Amino acid sequence: MARIKITVAYDGTHYHGWQRQKNAITVEALVEQAVHEIFRENNKIIGASRTDTGVHARGQVVIFDTDKAIPLRRIPLALNAKLPEDIVVVKAEEVAEDFHPRYHAVHKTYAYHLDHGDYVLPEYRFNTLGVRGSLDVKAMKEASQFFIGTHDFKGFCSTGSSVKSTVRTINWLKIHEEGTRITVTVNGNGFLYNMVRIMVGTLIEVGKGKMKSEEMKAIVSSGQRERAGKTAPAKGLSLYEITYE
Amino acid sequence: MARIKITVAYDGTHYHGWQRQKNAITVEALVEQAVHEIFRENNKIIGASRTDTGVHARGQVVIFDTDKAIPLRRIPLALNAKLPEDIVVVKAEEVAEDFHPRYHAVHKTYAYHLDHGDYVLPEYRFNTLGVRGSLDVKAMKEASQFFIGTHDFKGFCSTGSSVKSTVRTINWLKIHEEGTRITVTVNGNGFLYNMVRIMVGTLIEVGKGKMKSEEMKAIVSSGQRERAGKTAPAKGLSLYEITYE
Repeated sequence: MARIKITVAYDGTHYHGWQRQKNAITVEALVEQAVHEIFRENNKIIGASRTDTGVHARGQVVIFDTDKAIPLRRIPLALNAKLPEDIVVVKAEEVAEDFHPRYHAVHKTYAYHLDHGDYVLPEYRFNTLGVRGSLDVKAMKEASQFFIGTHDFKGFCSTGSSVKSTVRTINWLKIHEEGTRITVTVNGNGFLYNMVRIMVGTLIEVGKGKMKSEEMKAIVSSGQRERAGKTAPAKGLSLYEITYE
Repeated sequence: MARIKITVAYDGTHYHGWQRQKNAITVEALVEQAVHEIFRENNKIIGASRTDTGVHARGQVVIFDTDKAIPLRRIPLALNAKLPEDIVVVKAEEVAEDFHPRYHAVHKTYAYHLDHGDYVLPEYRFNTLGVRGSLDVKAMKEASQFFIGTHDFKGFCSTGSSVKSTVRTINWLKIHEEGTRITVTVNGNGFLYNMVRIMVGTLIEVGKGKMKSEEMKAIVSSGQRERAGKTAPAKGLSLYEITYE
């Protein structure tokens, strides 16, 4: 038996998120179906991250076990032939038999795209949030520095998740501008439910001048969800990369 | 009366090209409808380029005349509110009353995206041609130089167009690589029907080693359509910019 790790990119626009559901089309269901069609072993697949409806991925990590000796470099091509154009297997590797995509993840990187110009170009319409009114990107950059480090992110978490600890470490956060298009990229050891979207929503409030960057330290340490900004829409978010030891 | 020039970007995937047709949804029909809804003068619109089904644009140029005094900076916002997300007005300007978007065009720039890796990322699926088998990009660059200058491009033209002359001047052509993604950008004083797509189709043959870059001069000067490569699919092509004096 071999454990295969595949890296999957998708446009989440037309799916009800990653996780399998009754009566809704999800990315997991389609990837699992493709694996079954190719390997014919009724393989169970496990994904690293349960991305929400409308959230995208460049680097979702998925594992399954197989006894079939399909060459690794053939696996992406074979699976992609069974998948729609908005779900793409970009890589296949063999990993240790006890490798777990969720428990062994060390760092995750998310990217969030927004545009504060007058329009979002058609080619970016599925992965970019249009924000009305010009944003003060300098203030957003200042505010974003208060996320770096180890903090209790209780206030940056939507209800509905049951986690033991709300303490997380943010390693770095970059805000990149290209014309009016802004990409917020954030790397950490883990993220609470909706955490990146609430961070971005808060940065948007700062960019609009409705919150001050100086307040950020107090907002983070308050642990109060209502002091942080709104949850930014799913469409701008992409699970960019998951790294393992 | 004022003549308004608008610059329009669109994803052509879901349209039967630019030009108005009976029983088919075209970009022109939707832009004209939006102009009518905002200006309410039954304005006739004229586009610079009749892009084919599936071809995209970043810089289609369109004019119409109006007696309404809507401030120029309000026009894109007003029109975009009436347009779907895959058609976006990016700019509005006032031009001379005799300005014609087709006859006064001096240079046009087209971009063609292709990917010779094992997959096309989901976010590029609507505007990038996936090419199986690795391409020799160096040979493509060499071959592309034979397009530069003033030539009779009779062999790089699909039948069905009636033009007086098939002589055109290519000012520059660039081939840009980013990983396995390749963008061919070409600027000229005008292009024959399907000319860019036949040029790219020919460069793909060179990249695959089926044609030699040394043959290009003879292929161009032969004027024979059958000696050039296949017409590359519409989906990779975008009308990038049109410039005027």
